[in-house]
Amino acid sequence: MTWSNSRNKVLSERAQAVIPMGMYGHQSVMLLPDDYPQFFQRAEGAHLWDVDGNRYVDFMCGYGPNLFGYGNDVIDAAYSERMRAGDTMTGPGEAMVELAEAMVAQVSHADWAMFCKNGTDATTMAMMVARNHTGRKTIVLARGAYHGAAPWCTPLKKGVTPSDRANQIFYDYNDVESLEAAVRKAGDDLAAIFASPIKHDTFVDQESPTVEYARRARELCDERGALLIVDDVRAGFRLARDCSWSLVGVKPDLSSWGKAIANGHPISALLGADVCRMAAGTIYVTGSYWFSTAPMAASLATLKLIRETDYLERTQALGQRLRSGLDEVAGRHGFALRQTGPAEMPLIMVDDDPTLAKGYFWNQALIKRGVYFHPWHNMFICAAMTEGDIDFSLEAADDAFKLLKAAGPLEAPTKLAFMHQMLEA
Amino acid sequence: MTWSNSRNKVLSERAQAVIPMGMYGHQSVMLLPDDYPQFFQRAEGAHLWDVDGNRYVDFMCGYGPNLFGYGNDVIDAAYSERMRAGDTMTGPGEAMVELAEAMVAQVSHADWAMFCKNGTDATTMAMMVARNHTGRKTIVLARGAYHGAAPWCTPLKKGVTPSDRANQIFYDYNDVESLEAAVRKAGDDLAAIFASPIKHDTFVDQESPTVEYARRARELCDERGALLIVDDVRAGFRLARDCSWSLVGVKPDLSSWGKAIANGHPISALLGADVCRMAAGTIYVTGSYWFSTAPMAASLATLKLIRETDYLERTQALGQRLRSGLDEVAGRHGFALRQTGPAEMPLIMVDDDPTLAKGYFWNQALIKRGVYFHPWHNMFICAAMTEGDIDFSLEAADDAFKLLKAAGPLEAPTKLAFMHQMLEA
Repeated sequence: MTWSNSRNKVLSERAQAVIPMGMYGHQSVMLLPDDYPQFFQRAEGAHLWDVDGNRYVDFMCGYGPNLFGYGNDVIDAAYSERMRAGDTMTGPGEAMVELAEAMVAQVSHADWAMFCKNGTDATTMAMMVARNHTGRKTIVLARGAYHGAAPWCTPLKKGVTPSDRANQIFYDYNDVESLEAAVRKAGDDLAAIFASPIKHDTFVDQESPTVEYARRARELCDERGALLIVDDVRAGFRLARDCSWSLVGVKPDLSSWGKAIANGHPISALLGADVCRMAAGTIYVTGSYWFSTAPMAASLATLKLIRETDYLERTQALGQRLRSGLDEVAGRHGFALRQTGPAEMPLIMVDDDPTLAKGYFWNQALIKRGVYFHPWHNMFICAAMTEGDIDFSLEAADDAFKLLKAAGPLEAPTKLAFMHQMLEA
Repeated sequence: MTWSNSRNKVLSERAQAVIPMGMYGHQSVMLLPDDYPQFFQRAEGAHLWDVDGNRYVDFMCGYGPNLFGYGNDVIDAAYSERMRAGDTMTGPGEAMVELAEAMVAQVSHADWAMFCKNGTDATTMAMMVARNHTGRKTIVLARGAYHGAAPWCTPLKKGVTPSDRANQIFYDYNDVESLEAAVRKAGDDLAAIFASPIKHDTFVDQESPTVEYARRARELCDERGALLIVDDVRAGFRLARDCSWSLVGVKPDLSSWGKAIANGHPISALLGADVCRMAAGTIYVTGSYWFSTAPMAASLATLKLIRETDYLERTQALGQRLRSGLDEVAGRHGFALRQTGPAEMPLIMVDDDPTLAKGYFWNQALIKRGVYFHPWHNMFICAAMTEGDIDFSLEAADDAFKLLKAAGPLEAPTKLAFMHQMLEA
């Protein structure tokens, strides 16, 4: 079938009339290459169909939630069964206790669990628990790290006041001296150090935490009686069957979770250690749908697959196949890729491409060949992908590099200038 | 069947081990009479079964979401169909555009819609849009009104810093002089006035807005170039098939929605007028599950029922039947009730009961007779209730008053002392 986008255009125009800017948030295609579809019709396994019927191997996985494949039978059956029995009721169901038990059993640093809806809910609760526990205000965070989209943390400052960002000090990820300086600056007011499990910032090379950095963060918290928070919303259960910092042997006091924990059904979580159980139990946080049982049943089914399948080794092997295949394909056409981050959560950018012009061209060519890559955000491999999906994507990448070579010099994408303007405003 | 609670006790003990305080948020029974069940097994129509199999006529309706009955066939079929096709994908589906169109068509002040998950998301976005639109910081809010559980608005101050609450000035609901004084105090920094659609604060008599107060709020915003925000999360579509302030003829610039808009499926919304469309389109807000299509399909089905059924007249008539029946039953035993708020969203407290001792005793007796009432939070009537459910509840109320009369003088519930301590901390 020939790629086309007429239905997407019609819908985008209708959207312009009733949704500000036609779309908002992380799934807006406003900053993506021109032909990225905004609206989708269907999803199954590792594939996505847009409203014009074009099929994609989807390397975004819903920006993280899709771990076991879209429409996973076992997980969705658990959701449906529980939905029929009673989902959003006047109180929680037995599944809430079972899920808290299952999460505490799965995540080695955790003694208790609280459930919520957004990743932002979980990071905000972590901040509140740390402040309640310590009676202090200052949080120390890595510059450029994403912890959600509430006024205290959203990447853009529009609609945000200076007070919303008070009591925050920044450090550079993996830079021990910079972390120590931030902690010194916090003085006797340090409530918590926030850390992403890996550096998965947009637009820049991804980095795994060094053992030195992670250990020092733990030590500094211990010395000061502050809490260590790992924000595992995006990477949780994608790098390990435990908190991602189990890979560097460091246990946080608090960790935030979301996305993959119910394979796309709406639930997030804050897990914590006994040290701050009382502080967690005395903040007032809640939401209309936080105690709904169907997403909890789906999360229990997801955790069972996490425990009992080789999904992790499988996504790692598929990611490696993609990584080495892409390097070979790129080299064949005289290009190089900057492939960073874990293979199962890769960021893939074209090397020697400061304006992203090559990357935008290459990604746009991939979209038209049925491969949904992202030019500046980390991607995700799901367990429903096959070697065939990877090989299909490598062939598309080969075609796309051919076109890129033929295209010659390219202009910088104007969309990104708009974004930089927004970030600076 | 005899009422029992052994399973609930076992689960509550397990919960204590893995959830701080065993439960948190608005559905915690910590501040309710002793025998209120914490965990539920099943819900259908207007009824709820706890984990011990006790059935209740549920007057809390999930604290608002249940408008057309738990497990409503039409709404849940729309959810399931859409879930099978693709729910949380890498972008939204056509349903997002359709739902924005449907909400704008339904709510007369609205020109655009944004969707989110929590009611708190929608109120926080309203605040951000107002600040972005005006370039000012100060928001004016009614003292004691609930607008969510983020640091800027949560009712308890644990884990909250003074900066989180900066730029807030309070007025008394329905008190025009107090509103004017707050606006004067905001000076040239007024970004928005927040108003609940009705005064539905806990523990106190409910009040409908006076036309004078609502009109004055509108005027003050117009005079100052500020935005008027009606927080319709709890009452939306329960009092009118439009924004609740359509009943007093006042159009806000922004309104927040949630709960009943998808009959319990997880979605909330911010609706706005053209005046602040650009400001809404340039804040950065988002969430992992905000663009999931299944809740949007469920909301479309719910809106169809809102348009095409007599649910509103029906819940009002059932509420009136309950109200007059209860007055009669109470009088029969020499008691009086303070029944306030709209009949379909009633707050029912025992009169001459400053410590709530009578109310706690009476509600506890009702629970054991299969009627789930709340002693200090407004309740909800759903369209799946029948006259039989109301009459069953009236009989239970009759029994409960008999017991209350026989009980003689009662001690104040100690739980409430704990709450007052928390509120003052």
